[in-house]
Amino acid sequence: MRIRPMYDRVVVRRLPVETKTSGGIVIPDKSAGKSTRGEVLAVGPGKLLDDGTTATLAVKTGDQVLFGEYAGTEISLDGDKVLIIKEQDILAVVEEDVEQEKAA
Amino acid sequence: MRIRPMYDRVVVRRLPVETKTSGGIVIPDKSAGKSTRGEVLAVGPGKLLDDGTTATLAVKTGDQVLFGEYAGTEISLDGDKVLIIKEQDILAVVEEDVEQEKAA
Amino acid sequence: MRIRPMYDRVVVRRLPVETKTSGGIVIPDKSAGKSTRGEVLAVGPGKLLDDGTTATLAVKTGDQVLFGEYAGTEISLDGDKVLIIKEQDILAVVEEDVEQEKAA
Amino acid sequence: MRIRPMYDRVVVRRLPVETKTSGGIVIPDKSAGKSTRGEVLAVGPGKLLDDGTTATLAVKTGDQVLFGEYAGTEISLDGDKVLIIKEQDILAVVEEDVEQEKAA
Amino acid sequence: MRIRPMYDRVVVRRLPVETKTSGGIVIPDKSAGKSTRGEVLAVGPGKLLDDGTTATLAVKTGDQVLFGEYAGTEISLDGDKVLIIKEQDILAVVEEDVEQEKAA
Amino acid sequence: MRIRPMYDRVVVRRLPVETKTSGGIVIPDKSAGKSTRGEVLAVGPGKLLDDGTTATLAVKTGDQVLFGEYAGTEISLDGDKVLIIKEQDILAVVEEDVEQEKAA
Amino acid sequence: MRIRPMYDRVVVRRLPVETKTSGGIVIPDKSAGKSTRGEVLAVGPGKLLDDGTTATLAVKTGDQVLFGEYAGTEISLDGDKVLIIKEQDILAVVEEDVEQEKAA
Repeated sequence: MRIRPMYDRVVVRRLPVETKTSGGIVIPDKSAGKSTRGEVLAVGPGKLLDDGTTATLAVKTGDQVLFGEYAGTEISLDGDKVLIIKEQDILAVVEEDVEQEKAA
Repeated sequence: MRIRPMYDRVVVRRLPVETKTSGGIVIPDKSAGKSTRGEVLAVGPGKLLDDGTTATLAVKTGDQVLFGEYAGTEISLDGDKVLIIKEQDILAVVEEDVEQEKAA
Repeated sequence: MRIRPMYDRVVVRRLPVETKTSGGIVIPDKSAGKSTRGEVLAVGPGKLLDDGTTATLAVKTGDQVLFGEYAGTEISLDGDKVLIIKEQDILAVVEEDVEQEKAA
Repeated sequence: MRIRPMYDRVVVRRLPVETKTSGGIVIPDKSAGKSTRGEVLAVGPGKLLDDGTTATLAVKTGDQVLFGEYAGTEISLDGDKVLIIKEQDILAVVEEDVEQEKAA
Repeated sequence: MRIRPMYDRVVVRRLPVETKTSGGIVIPDKSAGKSTRGEVLAVGPGKLLDDGTTATLAVKTGDQVLFGEYAGTEISLDGDKVLIIKEQDILAVVEEDVEQEKAA
Repeated sequence: MRIRPMYDRVVVRRLPVETKTSGGIVIPDKSAGKSTRGEVLAVGPGKLLDDGTTATLAVKTGDQVLFGEYAGTEISLDGDKVLIIKEQDILAVVEEDVEQEKAA
Repeated sequence: MRIRPMYDRVVVRRLPVETKTSGGIVIPDKSAGKSTRGEVLAVGPGKLLDDGTTATLAVKTGDQVLFGEYAGTEISLDGDKVLIIKEQDILAVVEEDVEQEKAA
């Protein structure tokens, strides 16, 4: 199912929380609670401003983002759980992740 | 009964929550609680801005939309239950749903 | 008594909640709790905007409107109970009601 | 004592709540709780807007107004209780009251 | 000690609550709780508006004002208790008080 | 340690609360709870306005100010406790204090 | 991992709380609770204003800042705990710290 988020909302798939074993291997960490890192699947057209125009969002499809634990609304998309988050609840964009590149 | 929602309100009929059987057949899922997906029956003229003008809504009649579980006010329309939702409580518009097309 | 509601307030007389008997006759339904449908008796001059001007309301005297269960303030007008509601608490305007026309 | 209410405040003297006896005579109704109808004794110069100018009020001295039960602050003026209300808490202005004219 | 209140704040000395004896003499009434009437000792330069300019206040030193029971912050000024109140918490200005003039 | 407060924040060192003995001598009054009077050590560049510009503050380094009991955040600066207060929580500036001048 | 904070958010690494021993040596003070001082690792592009433009932040990478105890959201960055703080929760920037220079 393809969905278009409204205005300044963003669709995000949570990425598994990873822990590095002593041998340096990155493995998913089930005990760490909900991941607060995810990949952007779709972005809305922009934040509705007071004058009715919209301000384009600062994140794009494919970005990896960090967000608060309780951010967004969880919905089911073709059997997968995804989050629809307001852009203002996104804390930062991951620009480079050496660990992840080694593990890839 | 035909109704015209005010300003940035939208009239939505909830769509049944569906589950896919092992044989791939999509069936309504009564146990899933209130559906958070619906079809737009009517849209208001637009959101009232600070200067008194209105901003046209980004959803239109016939769209399928996703919304939060507690969004909107439920009213009875010719014996049917429908929701009147503020556009700002709509999370996303369903653009394409392969499952639904197969089941149709 | 004739009253002029202030700014974006609207005077509404609740319409009885109706149920259709098996024979198709529409009758008032006392058990349904407070009606959330009413007729507009008077409208204010408009919503006061930030710059001091007003925006004319989108409902007019004679319209039938739908509103939330707890909307407005109830006052007594010549012995009748009426509601004074802010326009922003009106959900929709009834444009056409086949049932009501048959019953009329 | 003469007082000048500030900005968008209005000084109101509550009018007694009246009930009509079977013989059609209007009498004060002590049991009805606080009256929510009153006469305007004085109005402020206007509502202070964001840009520092003021918007003249829509009620004037002598108007009879309806207001919510808990609106305003009660003060004592020469031994009488009066209310100082914000204009935004006034619901409507009584334009014509046949009952009151008959009783006068 | 001379103090300059900030922006839209006002320094007020509470005036004693007075009751009139049967003989018409006005005397302080200790039982009446905190007085909600006071004399303005100093006013701030003006209310800071959204654009950074200020709007001059509508009260001036020497005015007698009425305010809510819980308005302002009480401070000690040379051993006296005075109130520093935001102008928006002032209800009205006393323009003329025949009683007070007789008692003077 | 020298610190630059952000925007409309102000660094204040509390001044001891003083009581005057019968002999007229001003002495610190430990029992009076937290002092609500202090000296300004540093001021921020200005309050950030809606359009991104800043409005210069109305207090300056060296001013003595009065503030509410619970205003600001207490931090340790070279072992001393100081307060970082938002300008909007400052009630007034002390312009002249005869007592303090005599005691000096 | 390199991250780009959104809009007016700032990434900060807490600096250890230090206490000075009688001999003048500055040592980390574990008992002092969470440090409210940190070093800025990255800053967002600016605060989103009502008109959709952004206002550049007043802090930059490398600044040492003071902030409230409960400010920001803690995230894990390559195994280290860092804070993502809104600029409006930063109290001040440390401009000069003689103690720290001696200890360096």
